[in-house]
Amino acid sequence: SGLVLVKNPHLDLMEEDVLYHLDLGTKTHNLPAMFGDIKFVCVGGSPNRMRAFAQFMQRELGLAAAGEDVADICAGSDRYAMYRAGPVLSISHGMGIPSISIMLHELIKLLHHAKCRDVTIIRIGTSGGLGIEAGSVVITDTAVDSSFQPRFEQVVLDDVVVRSTELDKDLAEELLACSQDIPDFPTLIGHTMCTYDFYEGQGRLDGALCSFSSEKKLEYLRRAYEAGVRNIEMESSAFAALCGLCGLKGESCRLHLL
Amino acid sequence: SGLVLVKNPHLDLMEEDVLYHLDLGTKTHNLPAMFGDIKFVCVGGSPNRMRAFAQFMQRELGLAAAGEDVADICAGSDRYAMYRAGPVLSISHGMGIPSISIMLHELIKLLHHAKCRDVTIIRIGTSGGLGIEAGSVVITDTAVDSSFQPRFEQVVLDDVVVRSTELDKDLAEELLACSQDIPDFPTLIGHTMCTYDFYEGQGRLDGALCSFSSEKKLEYLRRAYEAGVRNIEMESSAFAALCGLCGLKGESCRLHLL
Repeated sequence: SGLVLVKNPHLDLMEEDVLYHLDLGTKTHNLPAMFGDIKFVCVGGSPNRMRAFAQFMQRELGLAAAGEDVADICAGSDRYAMYRAGPVLSISHGMGIPSISIMLHELIKLLHHAKCRDVTIIRIGTSGGLGIEAGSVVITDTAVDSSFQPRFEQVVLDDVVVRSTELDKDLAEELLACSQDIPDFPTLIGHTMCTYDFYEGQGRLDGALCSFSSEKKLEYLRRAYEAGVRNIEMESSAFAALCGLCGLKGESCRLHLL
Repeated sequence: SGLVLVKNPHLDLMEEDVLYHLDLGTKTHNLPAMFGDIKFVCVGGSPNRMRAFAQFMQRELGLAAAGEDVADICAGSDRYAMYRAGPVLSISHGMGIPSISIMLHELIKLLHHAKCRDVTIIRIGTSGGLGIEAGSVVITDTAVDSSFQPRFEQVVLDDVVVRSTELDKDLAEELLACSQDIPDFPTLIGHTMCTYDFYEGQGRLDGALCSFSSEKKLEYLRRAYEAGVRNIEMESSAFAALCGLCGLKGESCRLHLL
């Protein structure tokens, strides 16, 4: 049917669903009227970048003059920022798996309550590249953990549930084809390693703590490259797992800065 | 010596240390002049609340008139917000362990570069209470994981290092004594459970996914209470582990809202 799935039998029994961190709710807002026609959701870490992206989309879609401002739909909360440009929502998710997970749970319920159909979700932003040219965009086929395995371990109360982290292969190919229409836009499909930590977890030598040598770091990153990893970030595995379970066609595209 | 410790032999070899997510650096800013006299750092999730807290501290310390604005020291980055009021820094850390960890690595290096001495760091904010009166403040003695164990597992490249999550007991007692001077301010010392997930990880029945019954949830929370847990949040274990390793006297105090 193309609808977004929630997998929670308790939700139907609730009189009201408050999307606390988005400052939205089923009793306070008419979610089908506000969001029923949304077809694309783009998410990224930084609120400023997601506002700039919404302004860019407004111009691209001919919806507003350049520089015209967009309103933050979640202005009542400072946890996340949300903007819309026609059928496109642009939302910030902060940094790390716990932060993106809270936003995705509430976004998925929002799209479900709004009865949206055939929604595509794309994660955009920056990441650390691995053995690729600076300025390249990596489109993720599969997110992997720090052992290079395609899995996301989710603690559910005191059990650990292992979830798949494959993303939509057709969408990845479609995005790659788009990139080929643009000159000087190096783009590739590869695995993305998702870590819980930026400094020690990604082999950085400049954190407050560092117990490894640069040789050990390089040896680890070489093994990651051999396992197919082309970039490293901190949200893709939870993004892939949640989108996959809830029927959202999802993809992650990250620009590798210098 | 009371100095903040960094445990990273590579740092001394670096010509410049850029605290990327704070938009500060050793070459672009005179960190000892800006921060050398800091004695207290208060951190919390929400940027708006941390601004309000800095304004409150300004008034309490007689440094400014009520309502006078404070400037965001990290205004060039939208990852975190930082304000100061006399010897007190007030910084936001976003939601979840990965987000607070990035901030703490850069804060610890900041305090180290600034040659700060005898710094106390206190995490403030809200949390979910467990078997306690709404409006109570929990002062954490030890952070525990979802199995109620006092440990933080840190992935360092592909190894897992287990770290202690005990907080400063003297500071906890000192804060408890302060609370007793204020009427109607229910405060207790207890364990704080730190999870990686807000919905499934904390037994919430209102996420996009929920595979457990309310009975199973209550049975889990009852076991948590019996293990000494009095509140649940998403940052305390990384906070305790990093502060402990770097010689920062640290404590976590959370208000349990309804």
